[in-house]
Amino acid sequence: MSDRAPRTQGVPPAGAAGPRRKVYVSDPEWPTIRVPFTEVTLGAALGTGAPPAEPPIRLYDTSGPGSDPVHGLPPLRHPWITSRGDVEEYEGRPVAVRDDGRAAARRSAPGARAVPGAADPAAPRWPGHGRQPLRACTTSGGGRRPVTQLHYARAGVITEEMRFAALREGVRPEIVRDELAAGRAILPANVNHPESEPMVIGKRFLVKVNANIGNSSVTSSVADEVDKLSWATRWGADTVMDLSTGPDIHTTREWIIRNSPVPIGTVPIYQALEKADGRPEDLSWELYRDTLVEQAEQGVDYVTVHAGVLLRYVPLTAERVTGIVSRGGSIMAAWCLAHHEENFLYTHFDELCEIMAAYDMAFSLGDGLRPGSVADANDEAQLAELRTLGELTEVAWRHEVQVMVEGPGHVPLHKIAENVTLQQEVCHEAPFYTLGPLTIDVAPGYDHITSAIGAAVIGMHGTAMLCYVTPKEHLGLPDRDDVKQGMIAYKIAAHAADLAKGHPGAQRWDDALSKARFEFRWEDQFNLAVDPDTARSYHDETLPAAPAKTAHFCSMCGPKFCSMRISHDVREYAASRGIPVGVAVDEGMKQKAAEFLEAGASVYVAAERTRAR
Amino acid sequence: MSDRAPRTQGVPPAGAAGPRRKVYVSDPEWPTIRVPFTEVTLGAALGTGAPPAEPPIRLYDTSGPGSDPVHGLPPLRHPWITSRGDVEEYEGRPVAVRDDGRAAARRSAPGARAVPGAADPAAPRWPGHGRQPLRACTTSGGGRRPVTQLHYARAGVITEEMRFAALREGVRPEIVRDELAAGRAILPANVNHPESEPMVIGKRFLVKVNANIGNSSVTSSVADEVDKLSWATRWGADTVMDLSTGPDIHTTREWIIRNSPVPIGTVPIYQALEKADGRPEDLSWELYRDTLVEQAEQGVDYVTVHAGVLLRYVPLTAERVTGIVSRGGSIMAAWCLAHHEENFLYTHFDELCEIMAAYDMAFSLGDGLRPGSVADANDEAQLAELRTLGELTEVAWRHEVQVMVEGPGHVPLHKIAENVTLQQEVCHEAPFYTLGPLTIDVAPGYDHITSAIGAAVIGMHGTAMLCYVTPKEHLGLPDRDDVKQGMIAYKIAAHAADLAKGHPGAQRWDDALSKARFEFRWEDQFNLAVDPDTARSYHDETLPAAPAKTAHFCSMCGPKFCSMRISHDVREYAASRGIPVGVAVDEGMKQKAAEFLEAGASVYVAAERTRAR
Repeated sequence: MSDRAPRTQGVPPAGAAGPRRKVYVSDPEWPTIRVPFTEVTLGAALGTGAPPAEPPIRLYDTSGPGSDPVHGLPPLRHPWITSRGDVEEYEGRPVAVRDDGRAAARRSAPGARAVPGAADPAAPRWPGHGRQPLRACTTSGGGRRPVTQLHYARAGVITEEMRFAALREGVRPEIVRDELAAGRAILPANVNHPESEPMVIGKRFLVKVNANIGNSSVTSSVADEVDKLSWATRWGADTVMDLSTGPDIHTTREWIIRNSPVPIGTVPIYQALEKADGRPEDLSWELYRDTLVEQAEQGVDYVTVHAGVLLRYVPLTAERVTGIVSRGGSIMAAWCLAHHEENFLYTHFDELCEIMAAYDMAFSLGDGLRPGSVADANDEAQLAELRTLGELTEVAWRHEVQVMVEGPGHVPLHKIAENVTLQQEVCHEAPFYTLGPLTIDVAPGYDHITSAIGAAVIGMHGTAMLCYVTPKEHLGLPDRDDVKQGMIAYKIAAHAADLAKGHPGAQRWDDALSKARFEFRWEDQFNLAVDPDTARSYHDETLPAAPAKTAHFCSMCGPKFCSMRISHDVREYAASRGIPVGVAVDEGMKQKAAEFLEAGASVYVAAERTRAR
Repeated sequence: MSDRAPRTQGVPPAGAAGPRRKVYVSDPEWPTIRVPFTEVTLGAALGTGAPPAEPPIRLYDTSGPGSDPVHGLPPLRHPWITSRGDVEEYEGRPVAVRDDGRAAARRSAPGARAVPGAADPAAPRWPGHGRQPLRACTTSGGGRRPVTQLHYARAGVITEEMRFAALREGVRPEIVRDELAAGRAILPANVNHPESEPMVIGKRFLVKVNANIGNSSVTSSVADEVDKLSWATRWGADTVMDLSTGPDIHTTREWIIRNSPVPIGTVPIYQALEKADGRPEDLSWELYRDTLVEQAEQGVDYVTVHAGVLLRYVPLTAERVTGIVSRGGSIMAAWCLAHHEENFLYTHFDELCEIMAAYDMAFSLGDGLRPGSVADANDEAQLAELRTLGELTEVAWRHEVQVMVEGPGHVPLHKIAENVTLQQEVCHEAPFYTLGPLTIDVAPGYDHITSAIGAAVIGMHGTAMLCYVTPKEHLGLPDRDDVKQGMIAYKIAAHAADLAKGHPGAQRWDDALSKARFEFRWEDQFNLAVDPDTARSYHDETLPAAPAKTAHFCSMCGPKFCSMRISHDVREYAASRGIPVGVAVDEGMKQKAAEFLEAGASVYVAAERTRAR
């Protein structure tokens, strides 16, 4: 195996035994459906010796079953897909060396044929099984049957995928089916990605987070990208987009998909451009279609398609502060201007839909003209394209293809709500999938924060999925730690939105942690945290010893001045002496005051300790 | 000097010469008023060789003139204060050893007298000048003249302080005066803190950020705290609160105030409790009053006073998930219950106001019953106290004392706006000063982010100052890096709010950085960034060589696939060929398409590069 091959490293267990561990929950009626959760078992209140007062807390878990990357994940969905009887195996498109990009093509003889498992013989070939691809069976009319979750939902069928996703969300499967049928949600599930654990993206469900990975011509290897994939899902990525533009594009994607428990998205125009040797004007519908089929056969679950960048919209961007900021948008703009023809993705959109429907690939309609600075937010270029995306949404739905719609980008806080309102109206409530948005432009190095602010707010207003932004945004490609920082910031934003939307069950998590905080159950606080490792290490920096984790005080105030400790005492005082709750203190309390003094006279308070005032 | 004494280290210069440097701008009519700014000189567009297209950008600067900590800062405001002829020097309250806390008292003989510059002889004594304190002159009626900025504003006088703050904000001084007179803004400026550079807190002005520092009984030294002060103001702290509860409280505060270019806030009840040996029930109005005068003489600019924690409100917290979470609130609740008497801060509020007015110390009316978890947000305990704070605001205003009002805490996103609306209504538009709020409870280790989300949103709705939260919130005391991380997150939140409020000039900063980004002026991007060091180092991780900073591409896409580069080409193409801007492309463009191909055929785009799609 080349030194560019992935390290043999499974997904780190969420805590194999211990109080934070992975469990599988089955649908009682469908025992073959086993849905993963992170389960946190809570401890007893300190000093009571009593069993835990609260049942375990189950958290949504995206980390997958774990695997050795060279073998890939088990094909969980394969029996479900084949049992529906609507797909067939076929030989598939021949893989060519240039599928791995320009560098691969240059390294090889002209017209060289790829070896199985790697387009480029020099690339770290995928060593796992080589399944033949599936696609929809043909119908008597000569077309192909739609095999999409949208098709089944409209037909009133609850698929195993819907059932799985419903159990994950804690809702009835009928809700998933109905939201899919209405186009208000998607369940990305390419028939060639059986390894994925089904999930649903829509405003009635938990807000989801996408993590972008992918190499470029100057950085990164296949191994790095597979490692980032596992790392991202460990920290909660609900989907991952592979945005590679560098060498070994095809092969990198094969490794990623075979190891991914979450849906994988791509931007096929990036690979098509590689095949056109980087010259946008040499792109063509035929080249693009071939690339789309290539990716559909590998199992890409959703693709960003910049079909809304129309020729007539391009000049609307000329006076912007930051022009066109979408890479895909710029490529299509260049093509349109070079040929003075309408965007071929727009003119061939029906044909595109037919391909998508045959594999159940979902659209992520790209916002190629999204604003790249707060100055350009909500301008005519952006809104003109949005209207076209609304039109294309309806076309896709006619083909029973699932659709979500991408959104900005850079938007100041007061213009965020309008983005969701307009998109929901213009795109007939198709799920919105936004990049941040960044609420200011002046904090390079911290754009995970500038955008987590925008993401939380746009999520509250109904955005279904948030595309994360890492600290390296605008500056470089994210490394492993950047992926984690971006993920955590976005899990925070998504959960803030879930709470604000009143998602059933969301607040249970906060309440469990807050109660643990109030009762000084430090281990429970760590285990319930979005990032247990960091919470524990920050605590231990000041008070590392084990007894500190069972002490009735913490490092901020020390043992003698802990407002949380005082707070408990007051609560106990109130309870033991029957002080009425929620009413004014009555005269009878004068006697109780004396008792309180006798009893030790300190007051309960759950301290905001580092800056309590 | 003991090893606990501050390191001799000046404020790091913002860039003494170079393109990012400190400048002073004078009011043409008042040349003695020199207001500091960070000025960023912009470079030319790459490859043009032309002079900068844009004038320099001036940013608000809180870092102060820099000093050697052992000498303190020059007393900038001293001539302004004395020239008003309303204050007099006096001997001041004798400093006692117990002013430095319980540990100091235990170390010393009973009743020992402090040496000048340090209450505790074992503490690292303040070696700078020992000015006699100032306070308001008496009037013929036997009271003291109010010397507050509110008093002058109501009288129609524009003080030097108001003029300074107005120039800093970029507004006319009449606006500052009128906002102060209406109570909608405060200008914290104790006559005994002449070192401070005047600033104004109010919803019509830039949103401000407070940084908390302070030791506790288990961590930190005087040197650490002075270092954190300078570090916090370097990163933009508009005010700093010293929340020390550990040893050397009095002496630490002396070092901090003498070195602080920003207003200093405290919570006097913390020190009073130290003097009461940590027993809330032993507190008394007399002890508190003595502590307040002690701090007024040192120059504390504003104090948190938990006068709204009334006896009858305490039981309202008993059923909460997290009880009382304010340390000050818990102390007063304990006192009320122990004595079954009304809060002495409430019953002595008029007397309190008289002391505040004599030094121009401002109130920060504390929200001792603020929620400590999202479950407790906006509950009756919180709102009952808020109504009392509204009542006390009017009392303070009758004494011509400046007032701001503190707010939560932990609030889910959808309940944030209501907090501002209610506070502004109930407290007659007195400035709101909130702690975050944290929008979720489950991310210990990342509460600078969970709360920056809430802070940005509450700032947009009209909160005047945001109290930062560091990554160590709930886990430990912040170290130097935590202070920086908290400050950056909150400068981001504050600027996001400024943009959303349409503060004049706020967007100029973003536009300057975005233009630099679009034109690949990397050095300008770094120099304009909230944190130039981090932006530069992230960029250099991938492309460290100097030429990379003048290249028309960056590390994300590499030289051949840069959408930003393409974007420029399109713009040039459009401009040079007279393509009409903002209208649909006409038929005449067919010819232009051919020209575009001849000219090289690539398209301008300012890339969202790490995850462009």
